[in-house]
Amino acid sequence: MDELVWLNGQLIPAVEALIPASDRGFTLGDGLFETLCLQGGVVRDVPAHFARLAAGAKLLRLPLPFHAAAMDAILTETAAANHLTEGGLRLTVTRGTGPRGLLPPTSPHPTVLVSAFAPPSRAATVGAIIATCVARDEASPLSQVKVLNYLPNILARLEAQERGAEEALLLNRAGRVAGATIGNLLLKSGSIWLTPPVTEGALPGIRRARLLASGKVKEAPIDQDALRNATALCVSNVLTLRPIIALDGAALPAEPAGELAGL
Amino acid sequence: MDELVWLNGQLIPAVEALIPASDRGFTLGDGLFETLCLQGGVVRDVPAHFARLAAGAKLLRLPLPFHAAAMDAILTETAAANHLTEGGLRLTVTRGTGPRGLLPPTSPHPTVLVSAFAPPSRAATVGAIIATCVARDEASPLSQVKVLNYLPNILARLEAQERGAEEALLLNRAGRVAGATIGNLLLKSGSIWLTPPVTEGALPGIRRARLLASGKVKEAPIDQDALRNATALCVSNVLTLRPIIALDGAALPAEPAGELAGL
Repeated sequence: MDELVWLNGQLIPAVEALIPASDRGFTLGDGLFETLCLQGGVVRDVPAHFARLAAGAKLLRLPLPFHAAAMDAILTETAAANHLTEGGLRLTVTRGTGPRGLLPPTSPHPTVLVSAFAPPSRAATVGAIIATCVARDEASPLSQVKVLNYLPNILARLEAQERGAEEALLLNRAGRVAGATIGNLLLKSGSIWLTPPVTEGALPGIRRARLLASGKVKEAPIDQDALRNATALCVSNVLTLRPIIALDGAALPAEPAGELAGL
Repeated sequence: MDELVWLNGQLIPAVEALIPASDRGFTLGDGLFETLCLQGGVVRDVPAHFARLAAGAKLLRLPLPFHAAAMDAILTETAAANHLTEGGLRLTVTRGTGPRGLLPPTSPHPTVLVSAFAPPSRAATVGAIIATCVARDEASPLSQVKVLNYLPNILARLEAQERGAEEALLLNRAGRVAGATIGNLLLKSGSIWLTPPVTEGALPGIRRARLLASGKVKEAPIDQDALRNATALCVSNVLTLRPIIALDGAALPAEPAGELAGL
């Protein structure tokens, strides 16, 4: 079956989903996105995703063209149109087309794109490096929202690939860990699971928020010594929670994160 | 006359220039661009622009689908098709379409877009602020190339607008000035013109290189005291060289940059 995507109000074949070349998402990376989890035909945590998207839109002064309920409807409709009940969705919102120049148009017409996908087939565990090529700026408000400026993460992933690993951890300006390229870092120290606070440059992840709310994970700054002395490491995002079994080539105890599963 | 753009080998009406929604330029900001100056029907400094673009492409491991001579031909053809002999051109190169995920496809098919425009009508002088919302990471290799991740600059320009100014200066991690959102900063101290070295996070601007080669401008780190005590300030890019007549609301001597004109 051909994949369908939702583009500016219409479900259309993905191969026919075209964006004007003057869209500021394309010319400047001027936009936001969310990746969401689809379980049993239901999109999980839409209010939390909407809240993060709205925070990003507020920072960018980009008026969102929908509220949380409409966002849920669009996502659910896109999943159903693709006969998917499990997997994920990606929602992209850009500032839409604009004339030349950095300053946004005063009355933008945002572009909204939703695509749905089956559960990604990934290895159950992941090898990681500490990226040396780029850092995360914990002082930037952009570190707290999910924007279409992914080149630092792409460069970190390319470095990982060239060093024989899949994932990369990003350090912040202070040299402490901020997170991974596609998720938050969880670190087991003795019997406690820790994750960096958002003030360290961690993206406020949606599963991260659930883990914190469960009481099974606590926030704490994580320096490189702590990273290298960890009992176990995991990378979490809304689609997967995977143990890191090697860091910079050094094997880590394959401690299962079973106690965090289902959260 | 309808504007024509060059997209992946063809000159087409700008309104018909469409990009697949799966283009990584749109989904991740995974690409590069150059803005070039058109004078007397000739595109200036194509070898220098090509060299900077190639440096960016090398950093991104993005194989450029043209060499300098072909780039010149594409630019010149686009200007001519639009009956323009003066003004500017923008060349955008993205990694093209790709499946979900950060890691680039192993054999990407880059998207190449060229648009031409008449000389922009801008005020001859500019008021500026020192942006407080974002900083430039002089340690990142991405600060040295022109990538499609422009949200820090967009946020700085929005801050400028909200504070009643047009342009914003960006500080680096060390708190010294790196440049402006659409150009390099030039500072007159006594009788000498200075500009921050690229190690301070300055983009290696093409006009900046000409000014340095002329001997009329020297490289030097510029701290905020130097900025506030400057005899004169200018912002330079390949299209304009404009005096800054106010910084954070304080008037600056409207020193003409006439001695730099024509470079």
